[in-house]
Amino acid sequence: MIKEKNIQIIGAGLCGSLLALRLGQRGYNVTVFEKRPDLRKVDISAGRSINLALSDRGFAAIDLVGIQDKVQPFCIPMNGRMLHDTEGNTVLAPYSGREHEYINSISRGDLNSLLLDEAEALPNVTLHFNYDCRSVDFENATSHFYNYETKKESSQSADVIFGTDGAGSALRKNYYLENKFLFSFSQDYLTHGYKELSILPAENNGYKAYKNALHIWGRGDFMLIALPNLDGSFTVTLFLSYAEGDYNFNNLTTKERVLEFFEKYFKDALELMPNLIDDFFENPTAPLGTVKCSPWHYKGKTILLGDAAHAIVPFYGQGMNASFEDVVEFDKFLDLDFTTWERVFEAFEKSRKQDTDAIADLAIDNFHEMKGHVNHTDFREKRSLEMAFEKQFPNDYSSKYSLVTFNEKIGYREAMLRGRAQDKAILNMLADKVIKTPLDLSPDTLKQTLQNVQKETNNILEDDRVAGLK
Amino acid sequence: MIKEKNIQIIGAGLCGSLLALRLGQRGYNVTVFEKRPDLRKVDISAGRSINLALSDRGFAAIDLVGIQDKVQPFCIPMNGRMLHDTEGNTVLAPYSGREHEYINSISRGDLNSLLLDEAEALPNVTLHFNYDCRSVDFENATSHFYNYETKKESSQSADVIFGTDGAGSALRKNYYLENKFLFSFSQDYLTHGYKELSILPAENNGYKAYKNALHIWGRGDFMLIALPNLDGSFTVTLFLSYAEGDYNFNNLTTKERVLEFFEKYFKDALELMPNLIDDFFENPTAPLGTVKCSPWHYKGKTILLGDAAHAIVPFYGQGMNASFEDVVEFDKFLDLDFTTWERVFEAFEKSRKQDTDAIADLAIDNFHEMKGHVNHTDFREKRSLEMAFEKQFPNDYSSKYSLVTFNEKIGYREAMLRGRAQDKAILNMLADKVIKTPLDLSPDTLKQTLQNVQKETNNILEDDRVAGLK
Repeated sequence: MIKEKNIQIIGAGLCGSLLALRLGQRGYNVTVFEKRPDLRKVDISAGRSINLALSDRGFAAIDLVGIQDKVQPFCIPMNGRMLHDTEGNTVLAPYSGREHEYINSISRGDLNSLLLDEAEALPNVTLHFNYDCRSVDFENATSHFYNYETKKESSQSADVIFGTDGAGSALRKNYYLENKFLFSFSQDYLTHGYKELSILPAENNGYKAYKNALHIWGRGDFMLIALPNLDGSFTVTLFLSYAEGDYNFNNLTTKERVLEFFEKYFKDALELMPNLIDDFFENPTAPLGTVKCSPWHYKGKTILLGDAAHAIVPFYGQGMNASFEDVVEFDKFLDLDFTTWERVFEAFEKSRKQDTDAIADLAIDNFHEMKGHVNHTDFREKRSLEMAFEKQFPNDYSSKYSLVTFNEKIGYREAMLRGRAQDKAILNMLADKVIKTPLDLSPDTLKQTLQNVQKETNNILEDDRVAGLK
Repeated sequence: MIKEKNIQIIGAGLCGSLLALRLGQRGYNVTVFEKRPDLRKVDISAGRSINLALSDRGFAAIDLVGIQDKVQPFCIPMNGRMLHDTEGNTVLAPYSGREHEYINSISRGDLNSLLLDEAEALPNVTLHFNYDCRSVDFENATSHFYNYETKKESSQSADVIFGTDGAGSALRKNYYLENKFLFSFSQDYLTHGYKELSILPAENNGYKAYKNALHIWGRGDFMLIALPNLDGSFTVTLFLSYAEGDYNFNNLTTKERVLEFFEKYFKDALELMPNLIDDFFENPTAPLGTVKCSPWHYKGKTILLGDAAHAIVPFYGQGMNASFEDVVEFDKFLDLDFTTWERVFEAFEKSRKQDTDAIADLAIDNFHEMKGHVNHTDFREKRSLEMAFEKQFPNDYSSKYSLVTFNEKIGYREAMLRGRAQDKAILNMLADKVIKTPLDLSPDTLKQTLQNVQKETNNILEDDRVAGLK
């Protein structure tokens, strides 16, 4: 048993509030400090990251804290990608050949509010808002805050501090700047940024586009996506280069030019967005970055979790799911027989970091897949073959997407290695005409094809292993 | 032609002094500010990084500035790795099957002094020592220095500033901290650190160990290496984990324990090092890190070059060679028809960064190869096959090591992709018993084996290309 029970959490976003709830349930004394006002009382979305895709790894965390029934009403199932071409033609590409596998659009605000309510209901959890963490003395487990309401500074100590303060983490910044230990750290920006737009509801909260899909207008160098909200609206996001290409964020500076761009590339979307120009010029353009670092913890005093430890780009819909899974994985180490926080932190990071590194890399893969590959013949043939495998042999095959999204029993790293090897096997077998697409195949031939893909996948993994590459 | 001729260089290490010499030769007005005292007058080695391996990419830079004849006398050829096992048995593993391909041990101080002399001899190059760069106003191309001699601060402006101030670059730090543009940045530390030791000369400047080799005592989790110096001594470096394993830097705290460690693992080396204990406790333990970043340049005002842009671990002997090659590559862009520094910087980074990223990754590969793989049967069989290929068919095959070290006509990235594919092909063909080691092979069979390896290598590269992996 670990004796130190007083826990401070910096940041009451999705990860911090879930962590507070879970540690509260386990009996720790938890004090949470959040920089922003209480989002249950003040609208703080400000045109950024309003909605999210909740999937199986996230649900495992929801199950852990026992609030499945309260989350379910906020979820809108998205069964596949609705691909829009420049002519306005659409095709639904399912996420899985298994009907029960889909992802869920959910509002960040709704989910965060629910987690805060649940955490706050525990007598041993206390929430403080408007406390901006300015620095952390990690040697002494003491944080320094500035309170936006009282305009006063204060220091808050605890036995252990969890930094769940997101991609711009103050704790992580202190690790880097203080130079007290060897801190490996990376921040990598894409050349693309993003801007949130919207499709407003139809009359009576109806949906102007198909509700149960993640809509994608992939154009190779850039893309538009849309996710449904409960009120009938869609949150639309434009991913576009800052400086490259004929149209980019740096040169889309006039109403005329923005309309020209949308008319040329997103005509059917534009028809649903009479409010485009207002959204475009009111909402900020934000960067897309990946953050990795190590170690996450300092002795038994402090630890980073969620985006603070591993911020990723949004293209796999796994940012929140990965942060929630951190809490699930961390919780498992609390069940083990460790006697100090330091040993818990070490063991957790050793086990977990390979998986968060993997989802960061997978998310970059998916950026290229979503904006371009989804429209290529070879990619579409691969996907249709995989859908046939998953439908006909649901126990024998899972695509990379399915391994990552719907198989919370295996880690992201294993999903990445196996998923990439499968993709490589199928794409090469298609290119070499060794296998054909499912439309031409009898059930027996499909079974044989699956076995060939599995054999080739295992060969690829074995060849990499022999070469010491993985 | 570019009009702005006034150039400031921060840092007069190997890269900065070579750059000053080259830009001086091209007619620019060059002012160099170096933090340390003039190493031609003061010994500043302080037990760190005394010697280096100079190879073909570095020589290309030496050729560019026309000082081949002056560098040659400082070089000690090392034809291969002398591998020492725990019993004290040795075997020489050549770097190449071609006799003219070898690397050269050279003193950092001797080479740096020569470059400073050559640069200073030009009327349009000025050198200043003891100027510590504290920050750079990159918007206005102005650096702020503290002078260790006068104890005064000063600001120095130029048309363009080159930051060749090494792995701890002040300019790079400003890029990161000022948050004025999206700056991707990573620092990655190995769990291992290093400590320099020495084997002193025999009588009359003789060598106590074989002179023309890089000696390696690889022990799986750690290793010792030794490079010859002109005076008969060897610079010895211990690479060891800080905290892991039975023996590590954190627990080698007494004379007895250090001797016990060396007696157990490096007995034949210990016999040559009666001065071990003094060296061990006098010299610092230093970390091993990789730095990558982007962009290197800010508008047409500032640019990072050498270690400041891409510090790498020392295991490929390519740190200095990569920095020198930066100057060769940069010089090519000055021959082109650009009219602004900004366009030169953009074009240079776009072309160069993929190669410096590759050598950073290759150097990590070689860390594992040197401390462990060199002793494994499969690795040794691969190397003996490659040596036979290079000897019998010198125009048809180059190993990964040779591609990286002796083939300056191709970039590091191409060397990495082809070299890794070759290694993968050979290791898997050996594992599958498709090919045999050269001792068993007739010349005709060796030729056939080479063709099989080339075919399999091309298959591997093509499979990766189809899968979009490279």
